[in-house]
Amino acid sequence: MRLIAERLVEGMTPQERARAEKVESVLPALREAAVKADEEAEFPAGHVTLLREAGLLGLVVPEEFGGLGGSLRDLAAATYTLGTACPSTALAYFFHNTSASRGLLPLEAIEAGLFSEEDVPAVRDFAVKVLTRMAGGTWMANFASEEVKSSGANIAIATTATPVDGGWRLDGVKSFGCATGVADTYLVTARVAGTTTADGLALFLVPRDAPGVASRDPWNGLGMRASANHGITLEGVFVPAEEALTVPGSFVRMLTMSRGSFVGNQLAISAVYLGVAQSVYDFAIERLTRKSFADSGRPVASSPMHQVIIGDMTERLETSYLWIRRQLELETSEPPLRPKPEVYRQWRIAKGDIAESCFQVALGAFKACGTSAATLDGTLGRGLRDLAMGLVMTFPAERGRLEAAQMITSDKENELFASVNP
Amino acid sequence: MRLIAERLVEGMTPQERARAEKVESVLPALREAAVKADEEAEFPAGHVTLLREAGLLGLVVPEEFGGLGGSLRDLAAATYTLGTACPSTALAYFFHNTSASRGLLPLEAIEAGLFSEEDVPAVRDFAVKVLTRMAGGTWMANFASEEVKSSGANIAIATTATPVDGGWRLDGVKSFGCATGVADTYLVTARVAGTTTADGLALFLVPRDAPGVASRDPWNGLGMRASANHGITLEGVFVPAEEALTVPGSFVRMLTMSRGSFVGNQLAISAVYLGVAQSVYDFAIERLTRKSFADSGRPVASSPMHQVIIGDMTERLETSYLWIRRQLELETSEPPLRPKPEVYRQWRIAKGDIAESCFQVALGAFKACGTSAATLDGTLGRGLRDLAMGLVMTFPAERGRLEAAQMITSDKENELFASVNP
Amino acid sequence: MRLIAERLVEGMTPQERARAEKVESVLPALREAAVKADEEAEFPAGHVTLLREAGLLGLVVPEEFGGLGGSLRDLAAATYTLGTACPSTALAYFFHNTSASRGLLPLEAIEAGLFSEEDVPAVRDFAVKVLTRMAGGTWMANFASEEVKSSGANIAIATTATPVDGGWRLDGVKSFGCATGVADTYLVTARVAGTTTADGLALFLVPRDAPGVASRDPWNGLGMRASANHGITLEGVFVPAEEALTVPGSFVRMLTMSRGSFVGNQLAISAVYLGVAQSVYDFAIERLTRKSFADSGRPVASSPMHQVIIGDMTERLETSYLWIRRQLELETSEPPLRPKPEVYRQWRIAKGDIAESCFQVALGAFKACGTSAATLDGTLGRGLRDLAMGLVMTFPAERGRLEAAQMITSDKENELFASVNP
Amino acid sequence: MRLIAERLVEGMTPQERARAEKVESVLPALREAAVKADEEAEFPAGHVTLLREAGLLGLVVPEEFGGLGGSLRDLAAATYTLGTACPSTALAYFFHNTSASRGLLPLEAIEAGLFSEEDVPAVRDFAVKVLTRMAGGTWMANFASEEVKSSGANIAIATTATPVDGGWRLDGVKSFGCATGVADTYLVTARVAGTTTADGLALFLVPRDAPGVASRDPWNGLGMRASANHGITLEGVFVPAEEALTVPGSFVRMLTMSRGSFVGNQLAISAVYLGVAQSVYDFAIERLTRKSFADSGRPVASSPMHQVIIGDMTERLETSYLWIRRQLELETSEPPLRPKPEVYRQWRIAKGDIAESCFQVALGAFKACGTSAATLDGTLGRGLRDLAMGLVMTFPAERGRLEAAQMITSDKENELFASVNP
Repeated sequence: MRLIAERLVEGMTPQERARAEKVESVLPALREAAVKADEEAEFPAGHVTLLREAGLLGLVVPEEFGGLGGSLRDLAAATYTLGTACPSTALAYFFHNTSASRGLLPLEAIEAGLFSEEDVPAVRDFAVKVLTRMAGGTWMANFASEEVKSSGANIAIATTATPVDGGWRLDGVKSFGCATGVADTYLVTARVAGTTTADGLALFLVPRDAPGVASRDPWNGLGMRASANHGITLEGVFVPAEEALTVPGSFVRMLTMSRGSFVGNQLAISAVYLGVAQSVYDFAIERLTRKSFADSGRPVASSPMHQVIIGDMTERLETSYLWIRRQLELETSEPPLRPKPEVYRQWRIAKGDIAESCFQVALGAFKACGTSAATLDGTLGRGLRDLAMGLVMTFPAERGRLEAAQMITSDKENELFASVNP
Repeated sequence: MRLIAERLVEGMTPQERARAEKVESVLPALREAAVKADEEAEFPAGHVTLLREAGLLGLVVPEEFGGLGGSLRDLAAATYTLGTACPSTALAYFFHNTSASRGLLPLEAIEAGLFSEEDVPAVRDFAVKVLTRMAGGTWMANFASEEVKSSGANIAIATTATPVDGGWRLDGVKSFGCATGVADTYLVTARVAGTTTADGLALFLVPRDAPGVASRDPWNGLGMRASANHGITLEGVFVPAEEALTVPGSFVRMLTMSRGSFVGNQLAISAVYLGVAQSVYDFAIERLTRKSFADSGRPVASSPMHQVIIGDMTERLETSYLWIRRQLELETSEPPLRPKPEVYRQWRIAKGDIAESCFQVALGAFKACGTSAATLDGTLGRGLRDLAMGLVMTFPAERGRLEAAQMITSDKENELFASVNP
Repeated sequence: MRLIAERLVEGMTPQERARAEKVESVLPALREAAVKADEEAEFPAGHVTLLREAGLLGLVVPEEFGGLGGSLRDLAAATYTLGTACPSTALAYFFHNTSASRGLLPLEAIEAGLFSEEDVPAVRDFAVKVLTRMAGGTWMANFASEEVKSSGANIAIATTATPVDGGWRLDGVKSFGCATGVADTYLVTARVAGTTTADGLALFLVPRDAPGVASRDPWNGLGMRASANHGITLEGVFVPAEEALTVPGSFVRMLTMSRGSFVGNQLAISAVYLGVAQSVYDFAIERLTRKSFADSGRPVASSPMHQVIIGDMTERLETSYLWIRRQLELETSEPPLRPKPEVYRQWRIAKGDIAESCFQVALGAFKACGTSAATLDGTLGRGLRDLAMGLVMTFPAERGRLEAAQMITSDKENELFASVNP
Repeated sequence: MRLIAERLVEGMTPQERARAEKVESVLPALREAAVKADEEAEFPAGHVTLLREAGLLGLVVPEEFGGLGGSLRDLAAATYTLGTACPSTALAYFFHNTSASRGLLPLEAIEAGLFSEEDVPAVRDFAVKVLTRMAGGTWMANFASEEVKSSGANIAIATTATPVDGGWRLDGVKSFGCATGVADTYLVTARVAGTTTADGLALFLVPRDAPGVASRDPWNGLGMRASANHGITLEGVFVPAEEALTVPGSFVRMLTMSRGSFVGNQLAISAVYLGVAQSVYDFAIERLTRKSFADSGRPVASSPMHQVIIGDMTERLETSYLWIRRQLELETSEPPLRPKPEVYRQWRIAKGDIAESCFQVALGAFKACGTSAATLDGTLGRGLRDLAMGLVMTFPAERGRLEAAQMITSDKENELFASVNP
């Protein structure tokens, strides 16, 4: 049987197939719940249990910590597959899995000798704790983003951790985070009070119902409405010392271990959008080839306008696959095919282009299928809304290209500068 | 005071200004009702009275029939202005006004000698009836479209009128028509039973509550949700002879009188979308220039990505104005600036390009304003949804360009053919 | 008879028609010389005489100074018309006519009271001299551009005028200027030695053969090859005082009188490109509708790919007309339709969009007509090359849109700033 | 040392590297000759010897026939590499190598059992002859295309082979074929007189100087001017029986063996264009980062417009690599990653998109570098002209997408048809 994920991830090993089959096993339930979840803007109550019981919360946790041992290939395969059925669930599941990077990257950083002998135990303990819990069935929502915008950084952190007896006190607001009010544990990034650089960033494991934690008001999102992404407020929340990673510089050192895209798994969020785009595309082709003109009897798909739009949609869809497959290759190949800065630059373009292309697929499908399919809750209406969110939750293609341009020309500027000032 | 409509229609006469001021007088009420109307997908109950009392139902009816004597310039000014406040109302109001063409064009056709002396009285009576009623405060919804698609024509009519004692019996389904269940009278296009060409098309005035008339189930549209466009079914509906225009060929002859775009007022539907696009644009510019980056203190609008998107939005918006102003000029200039086929061809491109450009403005605004403005019910979410409808309610740019191409090359083909077969 | 220029300029007066007929009278000679002129990259020797004898060197000089009294409408009509026959000549003729602004704008500035009574005579004398000579048959090449680039200004001037006995000494290099070595007189913009702002800019009339003046080496341009735009060097060139306008600030004050686009006639350079695009378009449509497929006998133009490209070309061409006609309206309407900053902003977008659209027309024609028409010296090869130059001689669409964005958001920034710092 | 080809082809084996090094060894000579070759529109006389002596004429001929044993990977690597130095030579070399398919595919078809025992010897003899000669240093130009266009096929053949004593007589015109008048042998595709289907197509080896063979007049191409592609006329040309492959149906059967793109090596022509695009890109980045603004001292590349264009160019260039690398993977993977129809469909989109993207890179570079780099014979002028040829020598993106659309919807149409008419 051909798995859905094989459309994206090629050459799966038997182990990868086995994990992908677990993912496919939850699709019927996801599909059934998707329309209502979107309408009510509620994360479906049973989905946490569903994914936990399928063993999927430990998908990318190594087997030695009780996980399924999946890699970035598995994660992309999973979020893509889930995206074809319930984009909101796929998105929330993606963010749960990003928490694993806070376990995996520190372990890699230890391996690479980035921590002093003294710091190693604390770092390792925290990393193992994150991974073991995820594998054990804890949904671990990852709260990083805040409302404040910085022109010089992707994410700016104002939430503050103040040392108190036996641990830390957290205060702040996380504006975005999937599985708000749903996850078991919130993984919170905060700055240690008194520090001013990224070296002061630290991580905290906060139980969903800890005193001082509250969900922000749900908002009425255009799409991805059932991902419970409204975020939390933290007021005087106590976190015991052993539930935190506060070794100075550990956050920054950990990030240097990633293979390219941010914390090393961002392409799996693009895979969510690609899953949505593929399902919208399939819907449109099916509909346009089945419906015919009353006079000629020919399928609607055969009209010149439809041929143009179908050609464009196909090109956009295939281009998305090209970008994401290439990025997957760049971030998993051993030895690395390209130097990290090039992998990173490629990703900035890829991220924006995939978001844009997937949206264009939905827009093409919408235009081609006409008024009768233009409903708020149908496949196309939901697809258009969910994929519009992709443009802002990742970022527009314009930004990716501009970031790449800056990397290209600043490198050159630096080189030139160096030759003038020896 | 500068009127909203002056952004689109230049060089207004005092009479045009007076009419545009009537339109502006209803805006506060429209704006207040717009969000709820969209949410509930209901045409706001009071809007018919509001527009009637403002005297606006007879906007384009000549003064001799009791109307305000407005022209296509007034209609475009009005739908544009209303579009900035409540796109659904603007759309429904547009379709009401299209009914006037069924009074105006027959009168012009009589003037042009297209009807025999014998037929003139019946044609004139019907025309005057339509116009007088509209001026008198009747909301006259225009029901033409049906579900069946034809590869060779824009609109295919299957609804049938069978002659019965004292009049006609109508049977059929109208799949689309604004102000369903709201308008006082439905203007129904049907084919006379037994005819096979457009010469058999006829017009019928059907009271909203006539026996056999029923509203179809409301549908859950992606946008333009409060325009009550769900359409009607007609089952054995009796229409008295004097409420019908069934002179063979009258429909077709009437259409030949239009200045270019279909029944001579289609550009006013594009004006609705342009009004929406302008309000979305204004919202985005305001927001992006007011919000600043935490680190640099510079407005968000000044970032490279925002500058690119703002430049693109501006270009798209201005291009829409160019197309619609030019079309307005082409369809109102005396003597005509260009031959009718060229005016028509220009309109096909314009119609698609305006729909596309307006949508692109909304998409740009959406991308530029980010996640926090990406709500279902905010200005951007509604704008994106309403303008997406523009792509299917008029048509995509791809179609307009292909139609223009066909006109260009078929003309040439014909010319060539003639020279080969003398 | 319909004039070529009427495709662009509508509602011509009899006087305008008469002037446009003069322009059309030179077309046969231009068309005949165009291919060879491009091949040899030489401004055709006889063209100066041709245009002079047709009385066209004084086209936009008021009748009181001996000219034909044409306006910006005439100039656009002329450059467009010439552009359909020999783009290089059209370009060079455009630049000759821009010299007239150095006569017209100072006179307007005097009228507007921008000069002190004391300065008026010198300013008026120079202005009248420029205009009278042009009307009298002097080809006056306008040399402004230099090689140095500034990030903050469109044109940077380094050529220096040093006061000497009885006049001025000019030293510098003008990198671009049509009719190099061909024009009778070079109108040179230079900075008075010792000044640092635009107030120090001054104008000088330099005979082509004045001692110290030399043509730079001809260059091998991709297109517009027969416009002799290689520029000049000035080494110790003496200019008598009465052949200069050196009143401090006169240059800047003069510029404030223009209606929008720079010195008030830039849209006429875009008209050159539009003329080229129209002729390329006509060529392609003719060819594609005349040539047929061997199997089906249908014209090549009817294939799906050709229909798409023809539709796109038509849209791009019509959009160019919209932008330029609108700009012409904005810059000639009395009273002004829009405030000057808006006219200026519109122009930045228009300028880039027209250059881009015209190039896209040529590119579409090239793609549609296939290998057999893809010659260096054919209509399409020359059109593609000449229109590519339009992208760099005016500027790319990207720049126009970014400039517009900056105007939009900086205005807003300023407003906001003002409210914070009262 | 990193080879140029490694930018495109990853994971080269030592044998592949050795072959690629041979290719790089000829680059200095190619680079030196490129400008003059373009100017004079002459295939440089020494290049045949140069490539022959480097052993490159047998690049894709198996070692058993005396060749270098390269695969499609080697061919793409080679044409890409040569494309960075002299696009015309790269193009002509590509067409020489396509001749090998007329040896390789028949051998595969024999292996696959597509020929009867009786036919095998004749087929094998011809195949081996082609391959052995190429490996032995014969430049074998491939003449297929003719002037006649068919709406239903990519290539239509009218050249006719009539049986005569001891062989065949060829009559016809080949409108396009690189290395006209330069190659040693012309590989000519013709139809056997009296046949009406593709089964009647046959192959003939014609010495360049055979009686009755003449070069057509050279034409003045816009780009790829030194590839000698003007084609030949054949008037009563005698070809001995043993220099022909006339087994009925052999041409068609041979083609079925290809892995996707036509005769199994078309992506190597796209690699030529990509090589050109990369060199144009490198030139532009170098220039824009080296040149600075006089006022700010910042590199020209840092201006907002330049950043936008550089970002766009980079995205277009990278997208081209994605398409071509993917196609290379699809056509060389064992076992095949995707079914042949999908590989073929993908190629149609890829082919058009690569041509378009590469041209867009050149256009971006041209716009960004401004007037001073806009010469006919500079890197940008040549790049723009050579890449424009790519749009017509392969085909525009519009066509590839439309072909893909047709494959998608016709498949579906067929499926649907079958279910309705059992």
